[in-house]
Amino acid sequence: MSKAEDVGLVIVGSIGLDTIETPFEKRESLLGGSVSYACAAASFFGKVGMVGVVGTDFNDEYMAVYNRFGIDLAGLQQVEGETFRWSGVYDADMINRETLATDLNVFEHFMPIMPESYRSARYILLGNIAPELQLHVLGQVVSPEFVAADTMDLWIHIAREKLVEVIGRVDMLTLNDSEARLLTNQYNLRSCAETIRQMGPRYVVIKKGEHGAMLFGPDGLFLVPAYPVAAVTDPTGAGDTFAGAMMGYLAQQGNVSDSTLRTALLHGAVVASHGVEAFSLDRLVTLSPSDIAARLVELQAMMAV
Amino acid sequence: MSKAEDVGLVIVGSIGLDTIETPFEKRESLLGGSVSYACAAASFFGKVGMVGVVGTDFNDEYMAVYNRFGIDLAGLQQVEGETFRWSGVYDADMINRETLATDLNVFEHFMPIMPESYRSARYILLGNIAPELQLHVLGQVVSPEFVAADTMDLWIHIAREKLVEVIGRVDMLTLNDSEARLLTNQYNLRSCAETIRQMGPRYVVIKKGEHGAMLFGPDGLFLVPAYPVAAVTDPTGAGDTFAGAMMGYLAQQGNVSDSTLRTALLHGAVVASHGVEAFSLDRLVTLSPSDIAARLVELQAMMAV
Repeated sequence: MSKAEDVGLVIVGSIGLDTIETPFEKRESLLGGSVSYACAAASFFGKVGMVGVVGTDFNDEYMAVYNRFGIDLAGLQQVEGETFRWSGVYDADMINRETLATDLNVFEHFMPIMPESYRSARYILLGNIAPELQLHVLGQVVSPEFVAADTMDLWIHIAREKLVEVIGRVDMLTLNDSEARLLTNQYNLRSCAETIRQMGPRYVVIKKGEHGAMLFGPDGLFLVPAYPVAAVTDPTGAGDTFAGAMMGYLAQQGNVSDSTLRTALLHGAVVASHGVEAFSLDRLVTLSPSDIAARLVELQAMMAV
Repeated sequence: MSKAEDVGLVIVGSIGLDTIETPFEKRESLLGGSVSYACAAASFFGKVGMVGVVGTDFNDEYMAVYNRFGIDLAGLQQVEGETFRWSGVYDADMINRETLATDLNVFEHFMPIMPESYRSARYILLGNIAPELQLHVLGQVVSPEFVAADTMDLWIHIAREKLVEVIGRVDMLTLNDSEARLLTNQYNLRSCAETIRQMGPRYVVIKKGEHGAMLFGPDGLFLVPAYPVAAVTDPTGAGDTFAGAMMGYLAQQGNVSDSTLRTALLHGAVVASHGVEAFSLDRLVTLSPSDIAARLVELQAMMAV
């Protein structure tokens, strides 16, 4: 049974300290990782519980950021060692990027543990992390209403079998267009989505970055455009932010009707578009519900005929 | 004054016999060129006049295709020599392509002449063709209500000055995203559109192929998605088809209000999505108004929240 202090949405994923270089600027040791972006985005819509791991170098300033979003940290483990670190450099197009270094550190032996207060959560987002860890989380939840999983090319390459097992057990898979093609060995995105849906999930969201996203489900197709931001500062975590806001909205609404799902994707697009306007969670920290509402109105006006 | 036999929409552009190779098939001497695609697409919405040139090798079968669309051919010149020929090969993504050969032939000395019955046309589409020829057409029209021009990277490279003159004299410029970036030397598409609008046109349409198009104008931004076709056979001419259908719809409606423009772009997306399902004009030849109407309903359902 759900208790008052139980969280409605739980997100698992990576926590990283990122070094990011864009054509305009280089920044070091930025708070990042899929669960950081996703929880921050989801927090605008209700209580969200985080499952992740950090090292002893994860200082109070980073913790303070999580606390500013009111994220429930009962599932956050702090262990001996260094936090996961990633560094990458973006091309001039601010889309393609090269990974310069990946240091797993405390991630290497991470085993996600769901606190008791998370186990009856009705909404679960398995953020981008090794499929084996996603499965481990799935094994600890009690009949959630809606589980979404995100993934990336790395896992398709090195852990396809486990990933297919995850895909077979979730309600929605989110991934980007090139990953959908890699996973299915097909090019046309409708065909990709159809193939993935046959692997299990009722819903597939194909993310296309600045070109928006496509929702495939039993009620047909929904095309959500990306909000065209005037200046992208750092696209890192945009997909995680999108997924987090989408799941936060669903948990807030408490249903996954076609109309709610479509509106959830719009919220994902809006929050993600704010997120890329600054490095790390910097823009999300200052973001207000009225900023989200205003841009939602603006985006819907751009879609209206 | 407009007479009963006058056409409401005139389109100028290239007529070519194309040799096209996709990853799946190679086809030769296909009827193509910007004005062929644009006029065929526009013909679903009313009478359209064609301004172009062909050689003596342009046989009755090709002419019969134009006649099937009911295109007014008073502005079509047939001269001694061979028709313009283009050949290209598409990458596996069916988007990027390499031009293998371009033979200007009769195009080299082409000077577009507007028949008397075209000169009072209220809607003009300057299809993709040398800016100098677009200017020549502009010099022969009498106060049209709405002039749109399309262009391509070639003219930005070799005829920028004349192209800028064209841009300064039209109501709308349509071009694709990479061309917008090339023309303005900016990356962000909102900035590109703003810069182009400062060069003259009230409206800029940035075409993004399978990712749709963006309309920038005094009433804000409209994001039209591409209809996701199940199988692309040949993307050649999709941009011309889009522009032709859009202008055909505007001429049919007889106004360029924001709402009409948005609906015109939707029609452009729908007709273009049909066009890429076959080589040349093959799909447009079999297309019916009810096919267009049905896919328009389908596309709008994919945009509805």
